[in-house]
Amino acid sequence: MAIITLTTDFGHKDHFVGAIKGTILNNLPDVNIVDISHEINPFNIQECAYILKNAYRSFPQGSVHIVGVDSEESPENRHIAVQVDGHYFVSANNGVISLITSEIKPEKIVEISIPDIRPSSFPVLDVFVQVACHISRGGTLEVIGKSFDALKELREFEPRISNNGKTITGNVVYIDNYGNVITNIQKSLFEAYRNGRDFEVIARTNKITAIHNSYNGIINFNLEKGQRRGPGDALALFNSTGYIELAIYKSDLNTVGGASTLLGLNYRDTVTINFL
Amino acid sequence: MAIITLTTDFGHKDHFVGAIKGTILNNLPDVNIVDISHEINPFNIQECAYILKNAYRSFPQGSVHIVGVDSEESPENRHIAVQVDGHYFVSANNGVISLITSEIKPEKIVEISIPDIRPSSFPVLDVFVQVACHISRGGTLEVIGKSFDALKELREFEPRISNNGKTITGNVVYIDNYGNVITNIQKSLFEAYRNGRDFEVIARTNKITAIHNSYNGIINFNLEKGQRRGPGDALALFNSTGYIELAIYKSDLNTVGGASTLLGLNYRDTVTINFL
Amino acid sequence: MAIITLTTDFGHKDHFVGAIKGTILNNLPDVNIVDISHEINPFNIQECAYILKNAYRSFPQGSVHIVGVDSEESPENRHIAVQVDGHYFVSANNGVISLITSEIKPEKIVEISIPDIRPSSFPVLDVFVQVACHISRGGTLEVIGKSFDALKELREFEPRISNNGKTITGNVVYIDNYGNVITNIQKSLFEAYRNGRDFEVIARTNKITAIHNSYNGIINFNLEKGQRRGPGDALALFNSTGYIELAIYKSDLNTVGGASTLLGLNYRDTVTINFL
Repeated sequence: MAIITLTTDFGHKDHFVGAIKGTILNNLPDVNIVDISHEINPFNIQECAYILKNAYRSFPQGSVHIVGVDSEESPENRHIAVQVDGHYFVSANNGVISLITSEIKPEKIVEISIPDIRPSSFPVLDVFVQVACHISRGGTLEVIGKSFDALKELREFEPRISNNGKTITGNVVYIDNYGNVITNIQKSLFEAYRNGRDFEVIARTNKITAIHNSYNGIINFNLEKGQRRGPGDALALFNSTGYIELAIYKSDLNTVGGASTLLGLNYRDTVTINFL
Repeated sequence: MAIITLTTDFGHKDHFVGAIKGTILNNLPDVNIVDISHEINPFNIQECAYILKNAYRSFPQGSVHIVGVDSEESPENRHIAVQVDGHYFVSANNGVISLITSEIKPEKIVEISIPDIRPSSFPVLDVFVQVACHISRGGTLEVIGKSFDALKELREFEPRISNNGKTITGNVVYIDNYGNVITNIQKSLFEAYRNGRDFEVIARTNKITAIHNSYNGIINFNLEKGQRRGPGDALALFNSTGYIELAIYKSDLNTVGGASTLLGLNYRDTVTINFL
Repeated sequence: MAIITLTTDFGHKDHFVGAIKGTILNNLPDVNIVDISHEINPFNIQECAYILKNAYRSFPQGSVHIVGVDSEESPENRHIAVQVDGHYFVSANNGVISLITSEIKPEKIVEISIPDIRPSSFPVLDVFVQVACHISRGGTLEVIGKSFDALKELREFEPRISNNGKTITGNVVYIDNYGNVITNIQKSLFEAYRNGRDFEVIARTNKITAIHNSYNGIINFNLEKGQRRGPGDALALFNSTGYIELAIYKSDLNTVGGASTLLGLNYRDTVTINFL
């Protein structure tokens, strides 16, 4: 059964998502529609790019991913369909898939051009759904539009290396449901420069000298409970998406707080790694 | 495959939606259950009516729409099943489908009467799901209850014409995820009275003299970026549902703000169109 | 078609839920994935247990329920798969299914032990999904791990009887989307001790002397509207899950308020029933 995923900033209250699903089912009765997220902050391309990159890979090849963030067409924001890593993405050319295409060369990109579709304030419904259903039925990208090669990139997702490879300077690119703070520094980059050295992770006034592979990596289960570190303590980990994350153990924004609030870290803030 | 949609004020946290879906799947293994919205404000019939009207049309004919807002049965709030526009609605008779039935004459209405179902605080689960599954299996409405013709209406959704057709006075009927403000003035009504005249849209102290067909209709892409209007600017448009909407370009309630907050407009507030 | 449900504290914004669904579909193309809740407060086992107990029963026997709350494995938080009431649960051994297993004896429990799976910060994806798909394909629990009998319990969900059976002392265990307050006192317990006596329900300074079976049980529809009780009035009812609930009629936290705010009741607060 064909799979179409949805990643938007539409929220869950309005009729938008229901209308999209109804239209897909009208076009394609046998389809599995999966919500990736509808809670992207409005027009936040970076959030969208991060979420999309980390979700799409789990789906079977051939899945079609509709991305409805900042999707109104303009001379500077063309509608595109991209085949990359065996998946299909239908979006505006605003950078939402650039975290994927910066690592994996796209197999095909077209600028969408469908006759008889007039400008609309709801292009996800009027354009993207038609394109996604066409692809899901086995249609080719060539039918949808002409080849295109000016994919927009997101520059700020690149960490900088300095100090003869002794310093990696990254940024906070995402804050998750637990208030945990995700940087743009990948484990692979960290390992490439580490060379077995000790290190410190600096974020504002906080210094962390170990990076774990799980949240409870900071807990020494051989100690009595009263003597252990525990809920509320800060840690760094290589998270499940391969990025360095600053977290609070068992963080709950309503109780012990999250890394974002406790460490005072916001989107775009600097996180530095110094190899010693 | 049968389609059953859900529109409720249950929220996404509690067990209610899960219990409903489980019960549907127990009754009808091959069914496509689609959430339209579970984020209606509690007991807000007007919001529900607006969302439902704008979502149901996208679904295939024969779809069954369960509406779980203000659904406890009482002598003044009977349970009904309505066939209209080729779709089926199962709800209480409280006005939630009146925006649909005010434009399209229902084909059939019955008051639900199922033997052996006792009063319940969760009638969506105990009654509506049974009715929806019955209809989805091809059952007739006649089996469910007796014919009924006292559909409750929502009066306040009607704009008023005055001043010899020179003024249309409407109201804010919905505020969406972006803070954009939707009025009850349809494009068709506006065009019927315009007669080629200039006009002004008045909302509190704001005056707008153009209505676009897309949000970026206010942007002149021929100008340099620094000289254009842009994020944060107010506009009016005929939205994708056919109503006049007051919006903020690229509004984000967390950053530039939304029309609701920036223009000071709340639910029920007056929006006036003067033809000049 | 196999059914897999998801109950987590992941929220709806992050990529977590999308990644889980994609991975399930990659393993098991013909599956019905149903969200029970992703809005559990982070690490809140009691909330999770309450929601899960009241949702799972509606699903067909043989359904597999993934529970992703506090799921990182440690010496004190083993991963388990439990067969109970004809359903399968895959979770950490932290009490999330204890409200079910305290009433129905489990048919089988195993501690999950999968070779070649390394510790992970996202065990729901890396472990639970594999186990759930294995079970959904008809695989046995014995293949997954060894038998286990140390299920963790949640003690605080037990009301106390005192005063020679004249007093039941319970606690608030859940607050729902409407702000209604659910206690841990079941109707069956109440009836077992009542013996036809009058009673009062005491919650802080509030006293209620009737328990209804529906929210509008407090309304006398024979009275004129102006003379009736109505929105904003407090009541007690046996809710649809069989527990005593304190509610506000037509409560909306944005307008008339909810029981939690109006009666001043929070999670864990005491609710007492005195038989007179």
